[in-house]
Amino acid sequence: MPDSLPDSPNPAMHIHVDFQLPEPALDLLKSRTRDHHLSFARGGSASVLAPGQPDPALFEAEIIFGQPAPADLLQSSAVRLVQISSSGITRYDTPDFREAAARKGIQLCNSAHVFNRACADHLFAFLLAQSRQLPLALRTRSMEAGRDWVHLRNHCVPLDGQDLLILGFGAIGERLVELLRPYPLHITAYRRTPADRPDVRMIHRPADLQAALGKADHILNILPDSPHTRHFFDTARFQSCKPGAVFYNIGRGTTVDQSALLHALDHGPLSAAWLDVTDPEPLPDAHPLTRHPRVYLTPHIAGGHATESLTLVRHFLHNLQQFLIGAPLRDQVI
Amino acid sequence: MPDSLPDSPNPAMHIHVDFQLPEPALDLLKSRTRDHHLSFARGGSASVLAPGQPDPALFEAEIIFGQPAPADLLQSSAVRLVQISSSGITRYDTPDFREAAARKGIQLCNSAHVFNRACADHLFAFLLAQSRQLPLALRTRSMEAGRDWVHLRNHCVPLDGQDLLILGFGAIGERLVELLRPYPLHITAYRRTPADRPDVRMIHRPADLQAALGKADHILNILPDSPHTRHFFDTARFQSCKPGAVFYNIGRGTTVDQSALLHALDHGPLSAAWLDVTDPEPLPDAHPLTRHPRVYLTPHIAGGHATESLTLVRHFLHNLQQFLIGAPLRDQVI
Repeated sequence: MPDSLPDSPNPAMHIHVDFQLPEPALDLLKSRTRDHHLSFARGGSASVLAPGQPDPALFEAEIIFGQPAPADLLQSSAVRLVQISSSGITRYDTPDFREAAARKGIQLCNSAHVFNRACADHLFAFLLAQSRQLPLALRTRSMEAGRDWVHLRNHCVPLDGQDLLILGFGAIGERLVELLRPYPLHITAYRRTPADRPDVRMIHRPADLQAALGKADHILNILPDSPHTRHFFDTARFQSCKPGAVFYNIGRGTTVDQSALLHALDHGPLSAAWLDVTDPEPLPDAHPLTRHPRVYLTPHIAGGHATESLTLVRHFLHNLQQFLIGAPLRDQVI
Repeated sequence: MPDSLPDSPNPAMHIHVDFQLPEPALDLLKSRTRDHHLSFARGGSASVLAPGQPDPALFEAEIIFGQPAPADLLQSSAVRLVQISSSGITRYDTPDFREAAARKGIQLCNSAHVFNRACADHLFAFLLAQSRQLPLALRTRSMEAGRDWVHLRNHCVPLDGQDLLILGFGAIGERLVELLRPYPLHITAYRRTPADRPDVRMIHRPADLQAALGKADHILNILPDSPHTRHFFDTARFQSCKPGAVFYNIGRGTTVDQSALLHALDHGPLSAAWLDVTDPEPLPDAHPLTRHPRVYLTPHIAGGHATESLTLVRHFLHNLQQFLIGAPLRDQVI
């Protein structure tokens, strides 16, 4: 992504930023938006997901970068471009907001391409840790040829020839398929809207999903939160899975009925679950998923990476430049 | 690898197997060697690395499959082909044995291509678990935007743009480079004998190694055990490493001076170590490497996988067929 903007023949824009950025990312943002007016919300949060404080400056800005409240956006008569600082856009992804945004001419982008590589790495790390039995291996100190040792080796199942099902196939799924290319796999991907890819069997009908669940060795859930996806993985879907299948979730915790998941782990068909997201987050200490011997939990960090603030600012600067010249935006979702 | 042999115009061979194979692999071996005489050592071991019991039949066999003692091989006047059931060939890799084997016309193959994919997966699982901070993440149950959470995300360092150094570049290294292709990395590989590859900077001179150690973010040790590699990683080499570098070992434990490794972890420059091999194995409970907070140990399982016995038999059958028609053997090392 280019760090420099062309000498702008456009009028100066008012850009409002409603979340906190660490020093190097903030410096980059300031140095690359000198032709414009930059305002910052008072307060704010270190998390790109936490909503910033509302601020009078928000209502004067043509461009908003962060996590503005949908109601505030709809009250503004100035806003043209909204760059959301996360991949998830649940709050904006409603028919009402979409219709109002269209009427008011608001364009809204998420940050899928800021987090997709880290998310794909996290999912791939889960897959390989499962294949190589890392959690068990890291606590086994057995003698060569001992019973534990033979058991451990025999439970390392190579990915080669296995059947993978990806649910919610977008920027993360695309990167994951790139990463998996060296493995001879059968990959099926489910998404709401039909799509064609030569290397992935794309499905979008629930009937096809039923059959795909019955064949998959690894079920990779990247579904976003929406009214259509809440408890998408319910008892019926878990009970359609292949015996021994492993379930992964780096999408949103709300897409899973956690009681149904627990039942599928304890009574079949699932053999293990790797979850970066749960509902709520974090789970209460006493929740059975936190103590389950075949559940591996990470605390919603799949998209996190050391350079994420810088990448986020570069993503914004790219879209700012595109917006100013009327070119297509990256990750435009509304 | 083909499972069937051509109708053999060759005389029947005596094949001696000196280790135990589980049922399906044994069945495959028996069904594909019907034209030959198959003998099995009494006793034996479930491990492909443990030496089998010596046996009179060994001295009559033209072909030996397993872990025969080098002295037994040199006493045999019948043996022509030896298929070792491991990648490691330390016991055979001596000038004396090599010379005697050449004089007697013994060809010896290891099983590098049986284990290289699992080994590369294990090493890649280590790399991604480090990049995604899995050990810490799996025991962190923090609130979003809390201090632990921000710390964890900031410590997830993407592989993109990093510098990798592979020591002992053979079948495992080749597969690893395939797996790493989707990442923009700088890969340097060190091996005893010069080699050319377009995608890897190959080095073989100690002076070049010194400089490469100073640049590498990840140091991947796949060196075999030999008189030349014992304590290859000593104080001087560890102290040449880049501050913060991560050290990985799936080669042999003897290639590392473990006191020097501990010192490099406690006082710099290393930030962490992922070890599938140690010296001895397993380490005593009280050994400081077993309790070190930034040392991740697995019990010499890198090559292990659920189908390894079948793959091993297929590898042997391939080499048997090649031997019978005088064609090049796979993984011939002597």
